[in-house]
Amino acid sequence: MYRIGLDIGGTGIQIGLVDEKGHILERSELVTDTSHPFSEQVHAMANCIQEMIDSSGYSLLDIASIGAGVPGVANQKTGEVIYCTNLGWKHVPFREEFRKYFDKPVFVDNDATVAGLAESVAGVSAGSSSSVFITIGTGIGSGIIINGRIWSGAHGVGSELGHAILELDGEPCTCGNHGCVERYCSATAIIRMAREQLTRHPESSMMLACEGDLKKVNARIVIDAAREGDPTAEKVFRRFIKALSQTVANIINVIDPEIIVLGGGVARAGSFLLDAVRNDFPNYILYKDLPCAHIELARLGSDAGIIGAAMLS
Amino acid sequence: MYRIGLDIGGTGIQIGLVDEKGHILERSELVTDTSHPFSEQVHAMANCIQEMIDSSGYSLLDIASIGAGVPGVANQKTGEVIYCTNLGWKHVPFREEFRKYFDKPVFVDNDATVAGLAESVAGVSAGSSSSVFITIGTGIGSGIIINGRIWSGAHGVGSELGHAILELDGEPCTCGNHGCVERYCSATAIIRMAREQLTRHPESSMMLACEGDLKKVNARIVIDAAREGDPTAEKVFRRFIKALSQTVANIINVIDPEIIVLGGGVARAGSFLLDAVRNDFPNYILYKDLPCAHIELARLGSDAGIIGAAMLS
Repeated sequence: MYRIGLDIGGTGIQIGLVDEKGHILERSELVTDTSHPFSEQVHAMANCIQEMIDSSGYSLLDIASIGAGVPGVANQKTGEVIYCTNLGWKHVPFREEFRKYFDKPVFVDNDATVAGLAESVAGVSAGSSSSVFITIGTGIGSGIIINGRIWSGAHGVGSELGHAILELDGEPCTCGNHGCVERYCSATAIIRMAREQLTRHPESSMMLACEGDLKKVNARIVIDAAREGDPTAEKVFRRFIKALSQTVANIINVIDPEIIVLGGGVARAGSFLLDAVRNDFPNYILYKDLPCAHIELARLGSDAGIIGAAMLS
Repeated sequence: MYRIGLDIGGTGIQIGLVDEKGHILERSELVTDTSHPFSEQVHAMANCIQEMIDSSGYSLLDIASIGAGVPGVANQKTGEVIYCTNLGWKHVPFREEFRKYFDKPVFVDNDATVAGLAESVAGVSAGSSSSVFITIGTGIGSGIIINGRIWSGAHGVGSELGHAILELDGEPCTCGNHGCVERYCSATAIIRMAREQLTRHPESSMMLACEGDLKKVNARIVIDAAREGDPTAEKVFRRFIKALSQTVANIINVIDPEIIVLGGGVARAGSFLLDAVRNDFPNYILYKDLPCAHIELARLGSDAGIIGAAMLS
């Protein structure tokens, strides 16, 4: 049997036909169109799925289930999407609407959770029974796997590691709170800290890379400059690594999974990032001489969204 | 069938014969004697258990299992106690030693975890399938229940909420780290903040209660004074509640259990504490208009240690 996975994003929807080992056999995509109501958006997705199946030589009889990852909150039990701001969805009956087109089980969960599931089934954490996936991009998302199953909480509002508080009365966050993890550990945090430093250290090589325009600073510029030894970029990078390492240590001290997986755009920094975290996090864990989680980089890249969605059950 | 529960503490060991509903039918106790080696300590506990069973009219045939909660870290799989500083134990074969006296399954886990299990079986969180228990005393302990089972982590080093970082580069902690939760949310934290305030506000009613001796300040004095409206005590209490509420919110944002249970000595402040937390934590959760964990006070008091230990399986 095969499964359909949808990676629903604010700009595009990636659709895949996935086998039981997590290989994507066929792909299709749609531009996200929020100008139409929810039911028409689902109609377009259903058409796209049907065409992909037809053109691939498979039939609906080969399909065991349909799953979707959304950048928002879903009720896994009812199949309702509670919030999905980028798509303009609020309390929409996702499963119910899809089942008008397909007489198949339909699942929906948060996109970071789904990516964590993908890594735990077909990626770097395959074979582990517990893992925490952290996606480091504009914000911080996370997916928790416990006893081989997604844990999104009793009410589906858990796994929001990016909005755990890491600093009492710290940096103001877009969520209205202060001191959230994503204010210190995201690409946005790297950019904020770099801009602060660049006003004091215009001699930094980052200034050349962003053509003297602080608006053009991005995480890649900072990380590349840090890698090349620019002292200002190194300072920003070290602060970022410290906060990320403390977040990793918090996960170990509280959840203690077998493995912690770093993914998302910033994790493309690769071993430069991984080595720095591996080196720093042991400073912040409680039991320094006992075994704890391995820290690894995600392996599936942007395919994790489709694969994990297909794996939902 | 009945079960034996041991609540092993630094000063005393409470032993109970517990039925399947979590009622303690018989009790016994021992003074903790760390002057003897581990094997002799177990020998004394085994004797005490045997005498309790004999004198109660039951027999070993009625006993299904023996469980213990220890103020330390245990390997649930091997039954080894890895650390138990108060007892002077390090890597001791707890299960193996007990099985020299009893041909029964023997279990051992952290005492806060065990108390959380007790509440989830026979206390305030009974009937829930997920809960987080926070014990607020000299330090902060915690117990995590997921899908009706204890979750102490993949390596048994999880559930150490007291040493999650709540403030980057914050207060130095006894663990060697900085900014740990227990530096802000424990009786010790209340006392530290009260002493700081009392040097500036000697007019506070707390000064009278501690007879002008700052060494005599305790959490109860502070909470009683706050309850009676002393402004200095109120200030300390509000800071404590804010940190505890942010910790509660972090649990909701990441783990999202059905229920969060507040126990330990400080929770004896009762509804004064509970109402304050219930009022404040919603400020710090991400999804303010979605259902989330109920916050409740522990119900089993100091019996939770015996009951939860007996319930280990």
